[in-house]
Amino acid sequence: MVKKVAMIATNGYEDLELHYPRIRLIEAGYEVDLIGLSEDIIKGKHGYPIKPDLAMDDANPNDYIGLVLPGGASNPDHLRRYDSVLNFVKSINESKKLIAAICHAGWVLISARILEGKAATSYFAIKDDMINAGVLFKDEAVVIDDNLITSRSPEDLPAFMKAIIEYLKKIK
Amino acid sequence: MVKKVAMIATNGYEDLELHYPRIRLIEAGYEVDLIGLSEDIIKGKHGYPIKPDLAMDDANPNDYIGLVLPGGASNPDHLRRYDSVLNFVKSINESKKLIAAICHAGWVLISARILEGKAATSYFAIKDDMINAGVLFKDEAVVIDDNLITSRSPEDLPAFMKAIIEYLKKIK
Repeated sequence: MVKKVAMIATNGYEDLELHYPRIRLIEAGYEVDLIGLSEDIIKGKHGYPIKPDLAMDDANPNDYIGLVLPGGASNPDHLRRYDSVLNFVKSINESKKLIAAICHAGWVLISARILEGKAATSYFAIKDDMINAGVLFKDEAVVIDDNLITSRSPEDLPAFMKAIIEYLKKIK
Repeated sequence: MVKKVAMIATNGYEDLELHYPRIRLIEAGYEVDLIGLSEDIIKGKHGYPIKPDLAMDDANPNDYIGLVLPGGASNPDHLRRYDSVLNFVKSINESKKLIAAICHAGWVLISARILEGKAATSYFAIKDDMINAGVLFKDEAVVIDDNLITSRSPEDLPAFMKAIIEYLKKIK
């Protein structure tokens, strides 16, 4: 059976931070479900459109081996307002499945309250928010702490996805 | 020494067809030079911006182990008008180095006159142009004929890049 990875995004996502991980995971043989707040087409901050595969309320964390969250400031700023999103993130984390977040997506992890004592990175603009949430902040292209993989910006996508693919290969 | 792959693009490129291969090659350990008609920032058809690493007139085909051409109709429609572009493509092909093209990028290969008798694919809209240029046309996600790798559209990017990475791994 093909293993499925979840991604959650809404309008304003950083275009490459959604599409590069999505296509890269498909290339590596995984199925990717893009979960939206609804099934309406969403657009990246540069305008790239994509239709979510399903809506947040229809998504079950048990269906996935991990979660990848793209950034783009407006995207996670909106996602963190929804209990459905935060509960999904908490559930994935409680099952010790992969949680990967890049750029501003750290905001969603902060509101899901899963960062206390964890080593992580983010876009530099939200560094203070990350530290105030209990993060041991590192200014590195990719930071891996147990099931948490984080990166800073689109320039880090090669390191981010290399780490994610290696992590997923190890799980059975 | 890090091996370098060339990409050539101008305004109107299909955003993911440029950025997915570019980041994927970097992830795999290659250096990528994006060659523009000039060094001015170019934008994809959906608006994603990128600054070329160098201008066409400053590019030397001997510096590269291969060439990847993104689509987006307007992009190759303009590139094919330049002898500098066509001579670069011909030189890469004469050295039997990788030529990879997706979507509408087949137009550039047609004008470089390197397709006669080759198996290849393209976006369906330019299928007639490909066949008239002597192509044995195949409607498949990726078609590999010696040093030529072609795909149809952004949906084929996983197959396209998997084939390109496998091809490049084999060359010394």
